[in-house]
Amino acid sequence: MTPLFKKIAVVGCGLIGSSIVRGVREYGLAETIAIADANDAARAAIAELKLGDSVHADPREAVREADLVVVATPPAAIGAVAETIAEALAPGAILTDVGSVKESVGQAMAAAAPSGVHVIPGHPISGTERSGPEAGFSALFKGRWAILCPQPSEDAAYLAAVERLAAFWRGLDSQVELMEARHHDLVLAVTSHLPHLIAYNIVGTAADLEEVTQAEVIKFSAGGFRDFTRIAASDPVMWRDVFMLNKDAVLEILGRFNEDLQALSRAIRWGEADKLQELFTRTRDIRRSVIAVGQESAEPNFGRDRS
Amino acid sequence: MTPLFKKIAVVGCGLIGSSIVRGVREYGLAETIAIADANDAARAAIAELKLGDSVHADPREAVREADLVVVATPPAAIGAVAETIAEALAPGAILTDVGSVKESVGQAMAAAAPSGVHVIPGHPISGTERSGPEAGFSALFKGRWAILCPQPSEDAAYLAAVERLAAFWRGLDSQVELMEARHHDLVLAVTSHLPHLIAYNIVGTAADLEEVTQAEVIKFSAGGFRDFTRIAASDPVMWRDVFMLNKDAVLEILGRFNEDLQALSRAIRWGEADKLQELFTRTRDIRRSVIAVGQESAEPNFGRDRS
Repeated sequence: MTPLFKKIAVVGCGLIGSSIVRGVREYGLAETIAIADANDAARAAIAELKLGDSVHADPREAVREADLVVVATPPAAIGAVAETIAEALAPGAILTDVGSVKESVGQAMAAAAPSGVHVIPGHPISGTERSGPEAGFSALFKGRWAILCPQPSEDAAYLAAVERLAAFWRGLDSQVELMEARHHDLVLAVTSHLPHLIAYNIVGTAADLEEVTQAEVIKFSAGGFRDFTRIAASDPVMWRDVFMLNKDAVLEILGRFNEDLQALSRAIRWGEADKLQELFTRTRDIRRSVIAVGQESAEPNFGRDRS
Repeated sequence: MTPLFKKIAVVGCGLIGSSIVRGVREYGLAETIAIADANDAARAAIAELKLGDSVHADPREAVREADLVVVATPPAAIGAVAETIAEALAPGAILTDVGSVKESVGQAMAAAAPSGVHVIPGHPISGTERSGPEAGFSALFKGRWAILCPQPSEDAAYLAAVERLAAFWRGLDSQVELMEARHHDLVLAVTSHLPHLIAYNIVGTAADLEEVTQAEVIKFSAGGFRDFTRIAASDPVMWRDVFMLNKDAVLEILGRFNEDLQALSRAIRWGEADKLQELFTRTRDIRRSVIAVGQESAEPNFGRDRS
């Protein structure tokens, strides 16, 4: 089978970037793999792991003649990377990314890219709490959703590029969903950004208590807290960027969460047992739906330790 | 080896109760096992599963001549159970429980039990989000902590009973920690009760949104939300009781959580990226400690699906 792409360039080779590189090689999705990473230690690790065919400090060197360029840096760096590499992008190339925020990132890429380059923002809903090139593995995307947020366009070449990128993600064993960027950002604010914010917050709260020692929190974490520590171990820079770039949607959803939490707090204070039980029964039903759609069976995924 | 107890009675045979029964049989910790459960369907399941040597609707029948009585009902029922069985308890018997709240439950048991019965409130820090007699398994307590909250006493017989109950939990492969009941309730408010409250709340918030459909929330739950749905699938009645019975500690810790969340929300609104990154880096370090103390290796445990 002919590979989908002649040359893929992956700019930023952490958990996601290095997983893409591994998957591309394992499934034969591109003839050549070029990697760029600005970090010296990361490049040394990439060379050590023998990921890709070439490793570059300058992303322009990596993207030359690539027909697929995947920017896999932390979200806030994507716009600047696009500006840097713009001059070196080949006509007809696909420029995509893997950031957890799509509207602002997509606008930044579109503003930077020369005409003739197909900008298609993307986001694979997968990851672990680990980071760096060592943390990646080819099956990371297996059974997961990859969301693409194409620009509104009737252009046949652009639509063909979207289909080709969708085929690429399916080649990595993902399912593909097309979505408007703004809606993506709202959906992810609910299913990913708020859960991370809450987890970071609760772990921080627990660490700052005086009446309960940190040692006790750690020792007795099996009662639920431990799951939060795993989420709160996710990459700090990436998540900082997510909250900066998806501020409006996150604050909107956080506002709803706070209203509900105040109501719950009040129900506890006033001993409204029925109200609590009603909510707890309802949320249990939602869990059944999550299991029913088979999210659980697709391993490995976020929320499991592989360490 | 002579079993630790001649007869154990387990009152309430759900996830925890049935796991104790299975463990007692597997590890030979008692000669005879009597089970009481008020629920007809549960008793039918217990008989079907051939758990224990006898199954009773009336807990008084189960506890007669037992030298160890474990009340494993939802927390709010423990006091009433203790009152009911008081007349049937054998002199010198140990009366313990497994509830997630210890101060109020311990007081209720102590008030009900006749003198000569050793009341030792207990709490194994283990569980899954599943419930019912079918959900139990003998290794549930393996590598987990069991907390005992003995009453202040210098009585030699009482202290011997505490040691005997500790040996029982060690026999189920748990580690044992002694703690004051009030401190237990604060520690667990942090490591277990607040995490559950938050998880229930976030899943409820997500279910009520209009802009994002429930189908979307479920479909794209892999980004963090799914972990919360698992916690929010825990037994509704048990958790209702926990929040009713540990109200003060939960509201105190929830207050701290809220203060921190407001600060975090403000940092997002005003673009204070450094503040976010600092917190996210700090919480990552706590995760390392959780893994370092080996909580991760002790399986099965709360937070993993076994379905």
